[in-house]
Amino acid sequence: MARIVVKFGGTSVANVERIRQSARHVKREIDAGHQVTVVVSAMSGKTNELVGWTREAAPIHDAREYDAVVASGEQVTAGLMAIVLSEMGIPSRSFSGWQVPIRTDDAHGAARITDIDPTTLDELMNAGWVPVITGFQGVAPSGRVTTLGRGGSDTSAVAVAAAVKADRCDIYTDVDGVYTTDPRIVPKAQRLNKIAFEEMLEMASLGAKVLMIRSVELAMAQKVRLVVRSSFDDPDAPQIAPDGTPGVPGTLVCDEDEIMEKQIVSGVTLAKAEAKITLRDVKDRPGVAAAIFGALADQSIVVDMIVQNISDDGATTDITFTVPDSDYDKAVRALQDAGDSIEYSRISGSKGGAKISVVGVGMRSHAGVASSMFKALAEKGINIQLITTSEIKTSVLIDDQYAELAVRALHTYYGLDKQDA
Amino acid sequence: MARIVVKFGGTSVANVERIRQSARHVKREIDAGHQVTVVVSAMSGKTNELVGWTREAAPIHDAREYDAVVASGEQVTAGLMAIVLSEMGIPSRSFSGWQVPIRTDDAHGAARITDIDPTTLDELMNAGWVPVITGFQGVAPSGRVTTLGRGGSDTSAVAVAAAVKADRCDIYTDVDGVYTTDPRIVPKAQRLNKIAFEEMLEMASLGAKVLMIRSVELAMAQKVRLVVRSSFDDPDAPQIAPDGTPGVPGTLVCDEDEIMEKQIVSGVTLAKAEAKITLRDVKDRPGVAAAIFGALADQSIVVDMIVQNISDDGATTDITFTVPDSDYDKAVRALQDAGDSIEYSRISGSKGGAKISVVGVGMRSHAGVASSMFKALAEKGINIQLITTSEIKTSVLIDDQYAELAVRALHTYYGLDKQDA
Repeated sequence: MARIVVKFGGTSVANVERIRQSARHVKREIDAGHQVTVVVSAMSGKTNELVGWTREAAPIHDAREYDAVVASGEQVTAGLMAIVLSEMGIPSRSFSGWQVPIRTDDAHGAARITDIDPTTLDELMNAGWVPVITGFQGVAPSGRVTTLGRGGSDTSAVAVAAAVKADRCDIYTDVDGVYTTDPRIVPKAQRLNKIAFEEMLEMASLGAKVLMIRSVELAMAQKVRLVVRSSFDDPDAPQIAPDGTPGVPGTLVCDEDEIMEKQIVSGVTLAKAEAKITLRDVKDRPGVAAAIFGALADQSIVVDMIVQNISDDGATTDITFTVPDSDYDKAVRALQDAGDSIEYSRISGSKGGAKISVVGVGMRSHAGVASSMFKALAEKGINIQLITTSEIKTSVLIDDQYAELAVRALHTYYGLDKQDA
Repeated sequence: MARIVVKFGGTSVANVERIRQSARHVKREIDAGHQVTVVVSAMSGKTNELVGWTREAAPIHDAREYDAVVASGEQVTAGLMAIVLSEMGIPSRSFSGWQVPIRTDDAHGAARITDIDPTTLDELMNAGWVPVITGFQGVAPSGRVTTLGRGGSDTSAVAVAAAVKADRCDIYTDVDGVYTTDPRIVPKAQRLNKIAFEEMLEMASLGAKVLMIRSVELAMAQKVRLVVRSSFDDPDAPQIAPDGTPGVPGTLVCDEDEIMEKQIVSGVTLAKAEAKITLRDVKDRPGVAAAIFGALADQSIVVDMIVQNISDDGATTDITFTVPDSDYDKAVRALQDAGDSIEYSRISGSKGGAKISVVGVGMRSHAGVASSMFKALAEKGINIQLITTSEIKTSVLIDDQYAELAVRALHTYYGLDKQDA
């Protein structure tokens, strides 16, 4: 007997028929003797509709009222899911966040979960019931409803899984797992059997939008084993893991220790529309980086890669960084306006870069990944504009037009291609 | 300074633009120095959509889950109304039923309000805030959300008004008051300045669907002065009562004592599609009426007029009653099936009757209203099939084809026609 928290995203509860299909996945787990708690998102599109109404009501409005309005979406799906499960003979009841309670701080619109009382959930599951909880929301110390911000339902599911000490947390979505790279670019992309939390974090932040970063961080901190799987699969099909063995049909996101054979590279990711900006001959003194990136942060511009070379003469240096293409003009303007506090000789840059990254926990113990990456790209005649590295990731910025070619080349180079494709 | 509870129905909050228009009515009261609490319905059509989904999920389902789903509608409008009011410079916050709290019993789907704690509402109103409360719902002793059943928002508003000791409760809807009769039938119908609770109860139950009966009963019991008025009126127009004097532009539903000049007849109502059924030679013994109407109640058939004549011979009697045309066949079948327990010689009946009623508290002290009604109908050659009377109402069943003629004749006969129309 395992205890499982399952979470259904918006497309998995888009209408009553989809809710019924998702409920059959719950039934399969119950029939197998497991204990299940369900966490649901709002019907797909519903949250956008509600958010749209709050904006129409007033462009700037009280976040507490935003939360009161927007939290209604999950309430609907939780009730409907409980009805459908009961109809299938599985005793079930719905909970709004405040009823569990899922306690949060009072940062309305982007609240953080502080505490979940597992008592009622424990009692119900031990008695064979399936609690169905609204994702994305909780209750502040003031007694008002809070929401966790976009993608918060994944975070709710992980937090509930931690609170009830679940053996795993199945995130049902409209894709069937995490792939070595985007299958639209590389048809030979493989679905991963397992991926380490750290790798998933790098993948998530690099554009593999399967799981929200925040939920992966929480899962890693709370040691909650996550599974990314599809609610569109036949609920009654044999349960086969991506590697062909009996198991959970999806990708397990887990602690590194649980992964026996660590790949040097687990995945290749791509982020397009990156603009690069270079400041030449920046006065090399303490505080200059803070001044530059402070000016950008003031404009809510998110900076991605940052590279600073050692200065030749010890007096000036060049600093290069990337921003989304859409923020390029704003970023250049911000730096020109801040010209007095940041001394530099010249600003240059261009849009249309592509960031390619290879990710893998195996890199830690394996030298030469970066150099082999550069070699693989050089063989295709692709010029590298920028390089950044972290413990488990190496990223390069290249010209946009070579992006797909680069991803395919690296995918093959690191032995990630599916053999039978 | 007055304290006013205002309630906006579904058409008054159908979209953000309508919510804004309704909020301007609140602003007018605040600007005039009054204290206001708002009660809102769900956007029109929204509750039907939610109810539809619960039925699609399972034809028979847990009423607690139905409530969890359906209660979400008012949450949306309460939050949006609070946002719009704040945008207008009126400090405001929304409350779900459980947050006030509005306590109810646990009869999910048709709960009764047991208690409303006015503390927070009092504090907010005294500080110049406008609380906005979800109508139609509350919280059961179990902590689960309840709904009050259809039209429950009117009841919520009256209950809140009683709890905060409001001077009046303005029910904003899409009509501008209560009329002497249906203006579509009688163009000369007049909007009433005032109407007594008892009269409103008779009018409401007779097809003038402006207010839910239950809310009028509660208002009468709690002595809450109700006003029926339109949210579609210009919020900034001079406030003129129906009699042309400065005042609230709508119909005040109040205690009889507040009405100086009591009309003998305040209104004429019409209910069409009434079928009549007669049981001949029913054995006249104790329990026979209970057996007949019990058999109908078992089939959820609502019986309206009931007439039993004194039996000629003391042994048998004729019983006639009316049911909606749509229940006629089911009613006849139910009585035939129950034939053994109810002894009668013959069953007969027909569809297509119309019930015409004249209503007025003045009848109590004024003899001869019934006979004058029969005379007025006789003058038009209209045959009366059935008669029932109460303290403040006389109803007759006539052939459907004379319905409009009868209403117009009685409206004129009792001096209700507008003089300038």
